Amino acid sequence: MNRLELYINDMKSGVCNPHAEPIILKETAATAWVDGCDGLGATVGNFSMALAIKKAKECGVGWVAVKRCNHYGMAGYWALKAEKEGLIGMSFTNSSPILVPTRAKQGTLGTNPISMAAPATGGDSIVVDLATTTAAMGKVEMQIRKGEPLPEGWALGPDCEPTTDAQLAFDAGKLLPLGGLEKTNGYKGYCLSAMVEVLCSGLSGSRATHNVPQWSHSQTEPPNLGQCFVALNPECFAPGFGDRIADCLQHWRNLEPVDPSLPVLAPGDKERNNAKVTHARGTIKYPESQMTSAKRLADRIGIRPLEAI
Amino acid sequence: MNRLELYINDMKSGVCNPHAEPIILKETAATAWVDGCDGLGATVGNFSMALAIKKAKECGVGWVAVKRCNHYGMAGYWALKAEKEGLIGMSFTNSSPILVPTRAKQGTLGTNPISMAAPATGGDSIVVDLATTTAAMGKVEMQIRKGEPLPEGWALGPDCEPTTDAQLAFDAGKLLPLGGLEKTNGYKGYCLSAMVEVLCSGLSGSRATHNVPQWSHSQTEPPNLGQCFVALNPECFAPGFGDRIADCLQHWRNLEPVDPSLPVLAPGDKERNNAKVTHARGTIKYPESQMTSAKRLADRIGIRPLEAI
Ligand SMILES: NC(=O)c1ccc[n+]([C@@H]2O[C@H](COP(=O)([O-])OP(=O)(O)OC[C@H]3O[C@@H](n4cnc5c(N)ncnc54)[C@H](O)[C@@H]3O)[C@@H](O)[C@H]2O)c1
Ligand SMILES: NC(=O)c1ccc[n+]([C@@H]2O[C@H](COP(=O)([O-])OP(=O)(O)OC[C@H]3O[C@@H](n4cnc5c(N)ncnc54)[C@H](O)[C@@H]3O)[C@@H](O)[C@H]2O)c1
Repeated sequence: MNRLELYINDMKSGVCNPHAEPIILKETAATAWVDGCDGLGATVGNFSMALAIKKAKECGVGWVAVKRCNHYGMAGYWALKAEKEGLIGMSFTNSSPILVPTRAKQGTLGTNPISMAAPATGGDSIVVDLATTTAAMGKVEMQIRKGEPLPEGWALGPDCEPTTDAQLAFDAGKLLPLGGLEKTNGYKGYCLSAMVEVLCSGLSGSRATHNVPQWSHSQTEPPNLGQCFVALNPECFAPGFGDRIADCLQHWRNLEPVDPSLPVLAPGDKERNNAKVTHARGTIKYPESQMTSAKRLADRIGIRPLEAI
Repeated sequence: MNRLELYINDMKSGVCNPHAEPIILKETAATAWVDGCDGLGATVGNFSMALAIKKAKECGVGWVAVKRCNHYGMAGYWALKAEKEGLIGMSFTNSSPILVPTRAKQGTLGTNPISMAAPATGGDSIVVDLATTTAAMGKVEMQIRKGEPLPEGWALGPDCEPTTDAQLAFDAGKLLPLGGLEKTNGYKGYCLSAMVEVLCSGLSGSRATHNVPQWSHSQTEPPNLGQCFVALNPECFAPGFGDRIADCLQHWRNLEPVDPSLPVLAPGDKERNNAKVTHARGTIKYPESQMTSAKRLADRIGIRPLEAI
């Protein structure tokens, strides 16, 4: 929902072509280089992860790198497509230059997320899906929508000093890498973002993040993002993969917590628990400001607005 | 040097078999499952990365997961083997249970490092090589050897409260994941360590980290660590990979620094710069305490001790 207006703007301005279909430019049994042709993130994601899955089923690994992409939302959503097929899925994307490398003044890498989903026996799974900044820009926007300040260590202000003002941080576009400042080893988050850059723009020949325009500002040319989709067949390795993943999940969840009211979570549990609550309730909660902007958008494009229940 | 005594102890006690050669248990064009047979870390690393490189040259990707491994030192050393062949190299290992998952009291995952090396035009490279804890246990030991305290956010003490006492932290064995406590999104470091666990014990069927004995304590059975070696051929994707990596390196290094005396580094520059200084000087500097323990070790096994120049 938070992204809907930007996706529609991108189609209206023509930087995203909703009719484009991806094209395979180069291929081996295990790899493919794909041109996303500036299509919708969802179109490119579906095509590319399906291709990686097919290759992983045939030869153990499918590794697909894609240029000329648009924003594709949650990285983990694509990793989960492989997980549903009994495979390990991974996906990565580069983004707009808002991560400030350690010691630098200027945002130049992206929130470049890392995701992996791995299936466990019994329908369970490990889902890792994280921006390589301390927090994703989507989370900064949520703080603005909720009218709340940022925790420390998320962002720098326009003066390159740490700030907790969400709007100031959004406008400055200077997010700190995971780990924060250099003294708390924030250079590791910077390194992880660089690793994603290698797998995305490096492999695919898309724009490097430092050449991508700021997404939230009006655009005149396609962003030409790079994305990477990997599927891996655990059956090519030791038997019993699903049981081992289930054992890890159980072990982590059963760890004694420091605060008994805050149980230890496994990667992916937070989103799984939220989804359960939402399904049980049968409704989705949005902040008031989200409903207002959705209504403004509906009016602008002439469709019936969302209705609150 | 810091690890030498432990490697020798492991051979003396028989948990590491210096004569063992790894065996391939299962294989496809792109993948292999290997039994490290409790051999030396260096033996298993050389064998497994050479296999991944061969596969990557033949079909684009080589993905090798290994059980029954011993400690293999720097993860990035193995990634660099692929980089020297014009490939992207990655390596991961699980380790002893010293990372405390967010909200938990007890160390249960490892410092589980992530490494990637990617070749750039002109002999340059990006080298990412990092423990998924804020700091590696090796760094805690270096602080002990140097007699210096830990920075904040590295470790918990035996009481599960944050500590800056290096010896206390070493004895407690409770390192914080990258990002630190939950309020600074330290659960992301925990997630990354879990991801490495999937790629190591998950794929290979080695012990999960929570079943690995503490390495620094005396051992009676082999650790049976899991390791993962990946090589990827950039020639299977967009032409010009090396130039794009060189462009990123140049862009990052040329960013304006906050403090002009602290230039922005690219991932791998710190180690590259240290190696240059060391080569130019022609000598390696060790802390006094390292020389003392090396002498004790030499006496114990009856060889000539290191001599200071
Ligand atoms: N397309 C893009 O350009 C882009 C860029 C950045 C982020 N994103 C997406 O934004 C979303 C949010 O990213 P984020 O970095 O804010 O993620 P997040 O901080 O909400 O979660 C990161 C991970 O931590 C896990 N987690 C959370 N609390 C935990 C706990 N206590 N214990 C264990 N695990 C825990 C989650 O399950 C998740 O796997 C992701 O889906 C990401 O892919 C997209
Ligand atoms: N075998 C094992 O069980 C095991 C376990 C953990 C760690 N290790 C090894 O220990 C070693 C040390 O790990 P660590 O986590 O302490 O690494 P580190 O913190 O020293 O470095 C991590 C990475 O950050 C980069 N870096 C440092 N400063 C930077 C800056 N200012 N800007 C940009 N990049 C910067 C480095 O080049 C490196 O790639 C690694 O070689 C790792 O593989 C091994």
